[in-house]
Amino acid sequence: MPYNIPRGTQDILPGQVERWQYIEKVMQNICERYQYKEIRTPIFEHTELFQRGVGDSTDIVQKEMYTFQDRKGRSITLRPEGTASVVRSYVENKMYASANSLTKLFYIGPMFRYERPQSGRYRQFWQFGIEAIGTKNPAIDAEVISLAMNVYESVGLKNLKLVINSLGDDESRKQHRDALVGHFEPRIGEFCSDCQSRLKQNPLRILDCKKDRGHELMGTAPAILDYLNEESKAYFDHVLNYLQNLGINYEVDPNLVRGLDYYHHTAFEIMMDSDKFGAITTLAGGGRYSGLVQSIGGPEAPGIGFALSIERLLLAIDELNISLPIDEGIDCYLVTLGEKANEYSVALLERLRKAGLKAEMDYQNKKLKAQFKVADRLNAKFVAILGDDELSGNSINVKDLTDGNQEKIEIDKLIEYLKKKGEK
Amino acid sequence: MPYNIPRGTQDILPGQVERWQYIEKVMQNICERYQYKEIRTPIFEHTELFQRGVGDSTDIVQKEMYTFQDRKGRSITLRPEGTASVVRSYVENKMYASANSLTKLFYIGPMFRYERPQSGRYRQFWQFGIEAIGTKNPAIDAEVISLAMNVYESVGLKNLKLVINSLGDDESRKQHRDALVGHFEPRIGEFCSDCQSRLKQNPLRILDCKKDRGHELMGTAPAILDYLNEESKAYFDHVLNYLQNLGINYEVDPNLVRGLDYYHHTAFEIMMDSDKFGAITTLAGGGRYSGLVQSIGGPEAPGIGFALSIERLLLAIDELNISLPIDEGIDCYLVTLGEKANEYSVALLERLRKAGLKAEMDYQNKKLKAQFKVADRLNAKFVAILGDDELSGNSINVKDLTDGNQEKIEIDKLIEYLKKKGEK
Repeated sequence: MPYNIPRGTQDILPGQVERWQYIEKVMQNICERYQYKEIRTPIFEHTELFQRGVGDSTDIVQKEMYTFQDRKGRSITLRPEGTASVVRSYVENKMYASANSLTKLFYIGPMFRYERPQSGRYRQFWQFGIEAIGTKNPAIDAEVISLAMNVYESVGLKNLKLVINSLGDDESRKQHRDALVGHFEPRIGEFCSDCQSRLKQNPLRILDCKKDRGHELMGTAPAILDYLNEESKAYFDHVLNYLQNLGINYEVDPNLVRGLDYYHHTAFEIMMDSDKFGAITTLAGGGRYSGLVQSIGGPEAPGIGFALSIERLLLAIDELNISLPIDEGIDCYLVTLGEKANEYSVALLERLRKAGLKAEMDYQNKKLKAQFKVADRLNAKFVAILGDDELSGNSINVKDLTDGNQEKIEIDKLIEYLKKKGEK
Repeated sequence: MPYNIPRGTQDILPGQVERWQYIEKVMQNICERYQYKEIRTPIFEHTELFQRGVGDSTDIVQKEMYTFQDRKGRSITLRPEGTASVVRSYVENKMYASANSLTKLFYIGPMFRYERPQSGRYRQFWQFGIEAIGTKNPAIDAEVISLAMNVYESVGLKNLKLVINSLGDDESRKQHRDALVGHFEPRIGEFCSDCQSRLKQNPLRILDCKKDRGHELMGTAPAILDYLNEESKAYFDHVLNYLQNLGINYEVDPNLVRGLDYYHHTAFEIMMDSDKFGAITTLAGGGRYSGLVQSIGGPEAPGIGFALSIERLLLAIDELNISLPIDEGIDCYLVTLGEKANEYSVALLERLRKAGLKAEMDYQNKKLKAQFKVADRLNAKFVAILGDDELSGNSINVKDLTDGNQEKIEIDKLIEYLKKKGEK
């Protein structure tokens, strides 16, 4: 159907959008406290950026990108994630040259992946994420994790589990890689064709394979933690130590890996354990990277970040039956009787709104009873009733819907009255 | 350059993004008072929606759309404007069936048009817009215009000019169209080829032609206002009357037209007159439509809306040297002396932030002087200085940067102290 919404996308409508607004406000507020500043990059980028920044060998780049040619024949891709664009902007705008060489950024916005739509998974989905670029300091790793946990806790999520691992530095990763090749090579024929090509290209990704996850060699594969050199080990201990100081529980999972070469040291996921979810689910993932900024044309600047799906966060909120503190009521509904009063009310309504009050009236010649019904549905604190009689006497009846009391006051005193009574 | 931002798009960076956040908050706040609710539609839609909803004969659809095929071969287009998507969603979600059949919506987000980039004009640009669908009532026309004026006034813009016209109903439009054909046909050979094909297709659009705008027949063309039937005239008078009651000055411009068949009755633009701009510039445009909802598969439901460009609004703010009331300062910067104090501060910082304070510290082993410099640059209200000595005594020195006073307090009293002193 040409006039239907594209498959895998959704409209966020009134009734739902207030939850999005609330969650985004929480995120913005937390980022302000942690001093992460918002960045907005374009919806699309040159395709080469994601091939380089997300990785040519990933499923995202190979199968899931919305790629097309613009009118000049340039290959353009709707962003499938946030980090590559943020790093591109960091480099292009020479943020590394700023007075403070640590740059802390956050983003909220739609991302695009052509996947099979399923519950909670959309082709256009929203991510919130942060990046701290320019410094390698375990305190920053802890800060990034802490901010992520804070977001979830601030909206009331419980039973969160932080799973963490270290991928070490280049040397450690090389040692581990060799061990993995040695482990899988003798029996690689028993694995899927993807894994067979992964063996030489990027054996770490074998551990992520969904097809072969049951193979007996998976459970006995060498763990990266056993191959960390001294420096990498010390860095990881330092991060864990900070987490302890911050009161954040964690579980070290040696199988938590990231296939891309850019990833180093800290990798983490935040999961939620819920009976209702039926299983443990991953809410957010992040980690430290180096080499990425350089590969996009900048100086060597290490970074760390994480991203979370807003749709999945909302799903978790639903599963726990959390009701967000959203105030949708209005201050005053103008009920009018007669044409003159209705016409007059248009300007009165405007005065209320200009004074900062949330106010509404009827535009459809509804009967008195129907108008009161709307006032009720809009959760109005007060109803101000204006008939032609009142109008000629320059007065208006105001009814407090919280206690049912009604008073007749001067029209010109209405704003003052509503503001004063509304405060209590 | 593959790792550069795509031509005609921009990053909105810290330092600028605060202005965007502020303006959006103003818009959200005004919409709340006027009871317009946010709607978020996808970034892309089926191409047919815009061909139908924006109009096949428009420059937008013919020359400026980002259209591509998805992996299933469906034609997809990045939205070039907001109304078509909102109406699609209104129909698809049967909003017309809701209790109150007047639906008031707003949107803020990026739109996409492949145009020649120039100052203030981007290929990805941001629009704020509202739509009121379901009722034909001149009070709504006045409300929509008033809300638009309110947005501009709330950010401090001056010298705004509301230009308004009526396109009448179908009957009036038909009379006017015939008069236009009669006017231009005898000398159509003197016009550009586009205008020649417009003559039979849509003669109204000849009046919009940029190439032929100097032709003598333009100034003498029959004006729609002279062809309004009684009902259309009465409706227009009613709208103007409401504007007067709301204290909104207007100028009727019989040449303000809209080419599309959907447009009826009220059409308006908001312009700004500024010496600095060098000329009068259009900031926003809107109008009433009917037939659009039906053409997308819904019932006959008339609507009215407007859209404004956020980039152009910011340009206007710049031109008038308006400084928006943006508070970028932080509550406290932790200055640390020595490794122990620095490590300890990570958890202390976290406590400040969890208590709702905007706080920051040094992660890069900066010297004392450099740390104070950063505190200054971040516009900190207070600096809390922690050395290993203070730490062992469980105390901390707090300096009020507004008056230079310094006090030594218990570490555990820091949050309370900052909150209390920060209020004054």
